[in-house]
Amino acid sequence: MEKTAEAATTLLAAQPAISKDALFEHLLGHRKLTRKVIEAFPEDKLFTHNLGGMRTFSKMVAELISIAGPSLRGMVTGVWEELNEEIDFGGSKETMLKHWDEATEEINLYWPQLPESRFTESIVAFGLYEGTIYSTILYFIDNEIHHRSQGYVYLRSLGIEPPAFWDR
Amino acid sequence: MEKTAEAATTLLAAQPAISKDALFEHLLGHRKLTRKVIEAFPEDKLFTHNLGGMRTFSKMVAELISIAGPSLRGMVTGVWEELNEEIDFGGSKETMLKHWDEATEEINLYWPQLPESRFTESIVAFGLYEGTIYSTILYFIDNEIHHRSQGYVYLRSLGIEPPAFWDR
Repeated sequence: MEKTAEAATTLLAAQPAISKDALFEHLLGHRKLTRKVIEAFPEDKLFTHNLGGMRTFSKMVAELISIAGPSLRGMVTGVWEELNEEIDFGGSKETMLKHWDEATEEINLYWPQLPESRFTESIVAFGLYEGTIYSTILYFIDNEIHHRSQGYVYLRSLGIEPPAFWDR
Repeated sequence: MEKTAEAATTLLAAQPAISKDALFEHLLGHRKLTRKVIEAFPEDKLFTHNLGGMRTFSKMVAELISIAGPSLRGMVTGVWEELNEEIDFGGSKETMLKHWDEATEEINLYWPQLPESRFTESIVAFGLYEGTIYSTILYFIDNEIHHRSQGYVYLRSLGIEPPAFWDR
């Protein structure tokens, strides 16, 4: 009886602020929105337009693609490949979206293989970035929001209305 | 004995992907970085500079201040005031930072009063936005990252190097 009460207390304390399922929905919602931002660009502007000496949106998308899928794969397999941001889209929006969707598929494949109990585990992502599984996932979502938002400014500066931020 | 085993199983399932404490650290880290971005602007440019017909960074900061503290207060007290984005900084960066710090103090005050067990509870933030406590918190953090990133582009377009994204 005492043990049960103790377990119940611990259970209450461990009530998740954010569960694995909730984080997954959050992640996928952001990926959907970023996909819409890619779609909103005129094809050539993905590869040519920039502001303030910053990278084109295609370079930022390549960075995002290089991180998300390979991060999940690394977390599940424990094998981290070198971060490779050089993705050749051949100047094509369709090819970029294909790479984007393949990354989403990879996330869908590996996510169920990552038990919730591992989220607080320490890792060194890509052999370089120390953190936990959850902090690494939050970081790459943040990084996606950050660069996508730069895409919003690029779109606005081209006179194009970007997708609504809340429309995931 | 059976009850204990059952509780232990439930406990394992409820292992938090992201705990309340972890989310708090995440939130405060973002607030620190946004504060640095405000500081990086030349005072006048906060109130005058924009790109693509977008708002000045001061208007975005006013929005962020109007959301974060009042959201926490609303979650804890159950009383939601109307969203008020009209904050008069009087053209002063120092006043803006003062408002920013007061919002952080309000978050620090209310956060401990929000039990982790309530994070999945349904709320209607500001009487308008349906969600849960955790989804509302994630949403306003996302919104902060989104607008801060627009501030990054504004800074770059002014020839100013923004603070590093990872430096919280």
